[in-house]
Amino acid sequence: MVSEIMRDFSKDHSSLALNTATLGHNLDGQGAGWSSEQVIDACAKRGYGAITYWRREVGKRAFEIGQRTRAAGLTVSGLCRSPFLVGPLAPPTRSAVLDDFRASLAVASDLGASCLTICVGGIVPGSHSMTESLKQVREIVAEVADEAQSAKVKLALEPLHPAYGGNRSCLVTVRDAVDMCEQIAHPAVSVAIDVYHVWWDLTLGQELLRLGGDRIAGYHLCDWLADTQDVLLDRGMMGDGVSDLRSIRKAVESAGYKGFCEVEIFSAHNWWKRDPNEVLDICLERFRTVC
Amino acid sequence: MVSEIMRDFSKDHSSLALNTATLGHNLDGQGAGWSSEQVIDACAKRGYGAITYWRREVGKRAFEIGQRTRAAGLTVSGLCRSPFLVGPLAPPTRSAVLDDFRASLAVASDLGASCLTICVGGIVPGSHSMTESLKQVREIVAEVADEAQSAKVKLALEPLHPAYGGNRSCLVTVRDAVDMCEQIAHPAVSVAIDVYHVWWDLTLGQELLRLGGDRIAGYHLCDWLADTQDVLLDRGMMGDGVSDLRSIRKAVESAGYKGFCEVEIFSAHNWWKRDPNEVLDICLERFRTVC
Repeated sequence: MVSEIMRDFSKDHSSLALNTATLGHNLDGQGAGWSSEQVIDACAKRGYGAITYWRREVGKRAFEIGQRTRAAGLTVSGLCRSPFLVGPLAPPTRSAVLDDFRASLAVASDLGASCLTICVGGIVPGSHSMTESLKQVREIVAEVADEAQSAKVKLALEPLHPAYGGNRSCLVTVRDAVDMCEQIAHPAVSVAIDVYHVWWDLTLGQELLRLGGDRIAGYHLCDWLADTQDVLLDRGMMGDGVSDLRSIRKAVESAGYKGFCEVEIFSAHNWWKRDPNEVLDICLERFRTVC
Repeated sequence: MVSEIMRDFSKDHSSLALNTATLGHNLDGQGAGWSSEQVIDACAKRGYGAITYWRREVGKRAFEIGQRTRAAGLTVSGLCRSPFLVGPLAPPTRSAVLDDFRASLAVASDLGASCLTICVGGIVPGSHSMTESLKQVREIVAEVADEAQSAKVKLALEPLHPAYGGNRSCLVTVRDAVDMCEQIAHPAVSVAIDVYHVWWDLTLGQELLRLGGDRIAGYHLCDWLADTQDVLLDRGMMGDGVSDLRSIRKAVESAGYKGFCEVEIFSAHNWWKRDPNEVLDICLERFRTVC
């Protein structure tokens, strides 16, 4: 069964989540540098439903920050992220990858995060093979899946835009992510869908139906700017770009997804330079009107 | 029927074509600025089989340059390119688009080029709709198809990398290009396949089989650098990146393609700064060994 009726966010924005990357926190020293406590208070005040943190922000305070988030009436929607599992930016050995993967899972568990985002890493150096690279990813994720289930943390495979194929993600389409999910076939392994990475894909709806809402661990919002200057740090605010936000959400919800919609905007030259209060206000207004 | 045996370029490189963009000619004043005659002589001397020109290079000398190319024993494999047909970078009205499209077709015809590359342009401003944008592209291409056939020039729809979706091409997958080809269903309308744009797509082989070799108007070579710095002007030389060149060519040839393999490398900070003789030598060596 799939839902044909989209949720109405114009009057109820409790499904709105903030990914703290949107405020540029701790990212190369840019942004306002708010503490996690300040972020929690600012989100709670505005009626956001959840926050997703980055590992580098929470450090050893994961348990405390998780409690503080829930005490403010918010959910911890996720943790970004696992290390790259393969490719040129991954830790140097499989053993080191697994150690750091487990360490990130422990942080997610301490936080009480619903999911841990996995950016799988790029093509295995020298292999020239996406298939071989994906096979190695599959093996690593499968190895940690039982532990994730015990920790009550979903592993969210995030297909990234094909522009990241070389170094950050050999998993570049929803189709390939669904295939990997089916191949691993473990209840802890699911997929995260991000507008930035999938907006161009006309097969999105059919692939999400194949995946099913139970295996969608997250839905991330931003926009693709027509004249984007940088595929890493020039994401747009919802409504400022070319993506068809309503149709994308319809595809996600038609597959059965009912979870948070998490704003994640990397924007070194625009949004990260603004007052975080303004950014949070605009995210909320756009969420109610264009998402 | 499809061919299962790949061509052997190690001893016969007559299928090698140069896209003059590889030498950075006339592109923002970079590159050595060779004349078309110098390019022709340098390619003929090395046994290249064909040259694809850019419209801005040949100007009103298209007929003369075409004759000169053939006199040197080379084929004119193509002309780059039509104007953008839709999106923010297209001419301001449909009438202006059609005028310039026809003007580019006339240059291709004067050159005796086998095909005219079409970069379709980005999402129609304000539409937020890839489907609507593609529909407009389809209408425009269909309107010019008969004229292309009369001129003996194939219209080569080139799906560009999804990173160009906003401004340069709402046609971003081979699947969508094959669909458009089927929908227009005209013998002059075909598809060009470029390693840079498709290397990440695991459905390439099945989509090319659906297309068929007769509707593949060109095959373009370069490589995707793992740590690419710029999705417009940082293409890699074949063998320097992560793409699986042999598998991609196998997919193209298994669909029945037997035409030229055209090196097209936009590289403002590396290859365009080198001596064109060196670039041509290295293209040839890589063609024989890694493509």
